[in-house]
Amino acid sequence: MGRPHTPLLDRDRIADAALKLTDRRGDFTILDLARALKVTPAALYHHVDGRDGIIALMRERIARTVDASGFGQLPWDQALRQWAVSYRDTFAAHPGTISMLAAEPVADPAVHALYERAATALDDAGFPRQMVLAVITAVESFVLGSALDLAAPPVMVTGVDPGANPRLAEAAAAAPPGRARADQAFGLGLDALMTGLRHQLSEVGDDRSHPGPDIRAATATIR
Amino acid sequence: MGRPHTPLLDRDRIADAALKLTDRRGDFTILDLARALKVTPAALYHHVDGRDGIIALMRERIARTVDASGFGQLPWDQALRQWAVSYRDTFAAHPGTISMLAAEPVADPAVHALYERAATALDDAGFPRQMVLAVITAVESFVLGSALDLAAPPVMVTGVDPGANPRLAEAAAAAPPGRARADQAFGLGLDALMTGLRHQLSEVGDDRSHPGPDIRAATATIR
Repeated sequence: MGRPHTPLLDRDRIADAALKLTDRRGDFTILDLARALKVTPAALYHHVDGRDGIIALMRERIARTVDASGFGQLPWDQALRQWAVSYRDTFAAHPGTISMLAAEPVADPAVHALYERAATALDDAGFPRQMVLAVITAVESFVLGSALDLAAPPVMVTGVDPGANPRLAEAAAAAPPGRARADQAFGLGLDALMTGLRHQLSEVGDDRSHPGPDIRAATATIR
Repeated sequence: MGRPHTPLLDRDRIADAALKLTDRRGDFTILDLARALKVTPAALYHHVDGRDGIIALMRERIARTVDASGFGQLPWDQALRQWAVSYRDTFAAHPGTISMLAAEPVADPAVHALYERAATALDDAGFPRQMVLAVITAVESFVLGSALDLAAPPVMVTGVDPGANPRLAEAAAAAPPGRARADQAFGLGLDALMTGLRHQLSEVGDDRSHPGPDIRAATATIR
């Protein structure tokens, strides 16, 4: 009935095509993207604000599939855990985008609104204001590294010589096989991170104007 | 005195050139690498076993600069922390390699020897054998994500509208500026991870044949 086979160019189609290219090559160019969409670069620029605009679209498209519904509904640590689990699944499906998205600051209002939910939950839980983004970033860093690990081959080490490296060989033999290996490491690390964050919150106390012992300890120990 | 301007092709020069290309583009090809080294691809193949061999060289070159000296010398958690701090610094200098190296299993005896030191320290500390690689992987995932964050712009969010997203705007204003932002998130997360791992170890008890409550809890909760 006169409906075109190719849907009109819209922002979701652009984001999907850019994700597809980046999944394959870790990056995209405007020319490749225009070719994949069978349009001219000028037509692309009609919809998006250059390369940065396309990266923002990709981030928004991915962020929309991450489950942030627990913030404000569940206790902060359960909500943060649910968000982390969903976040890893989403990025593990697009490992090629991880480095690229991590290299750009988050400038999109739609994604800001998701972070607003997380920031509100942590603020309400009693984390000092100056710790809030650090908590979110620490969990994100663990999630992104774990998504890379999940996208990696199912074994972490291969060809270990048990004569030269007996303890590593034993540990490798005892690790679960296949995807369960990455799931075990993620679950164990996420549990540890949450236990540690609960501990840090319990030490902060009620004085919101005070940076709290953990910030100073952290800053002092990593350099 | 007859010394050539270009040093002879050796494995370190190959690794350095491959790192340089990958730092810039997130990947390398044999052809580009040969061109950068001013040799033929055939000359390269004389020194290394194809692309996988070159990736192994890069990993070994990077791993040699990570400080694993604490394992066996310091308590396990201090050694693991020192290793994580040094590991982040090393990978933050080569952010383009992170995705590529994470996508390949570790097959090099020189790198196996470094993991052997970590596995021995965790084993001796009392971690059940089937948790050892998971602990190492969890810390590595946090380190790699944090290295991507350190290589990122000094701000995490930009252009937050304080009317629409007030708590995020406050959190962003309260976060430390510049590199201190990434350092704070890394230090806070590493502290939390270590606190949680110490807690998990204390719950494992002495029965090494038993998987321990944390493995089962982790596996049960992430799916």
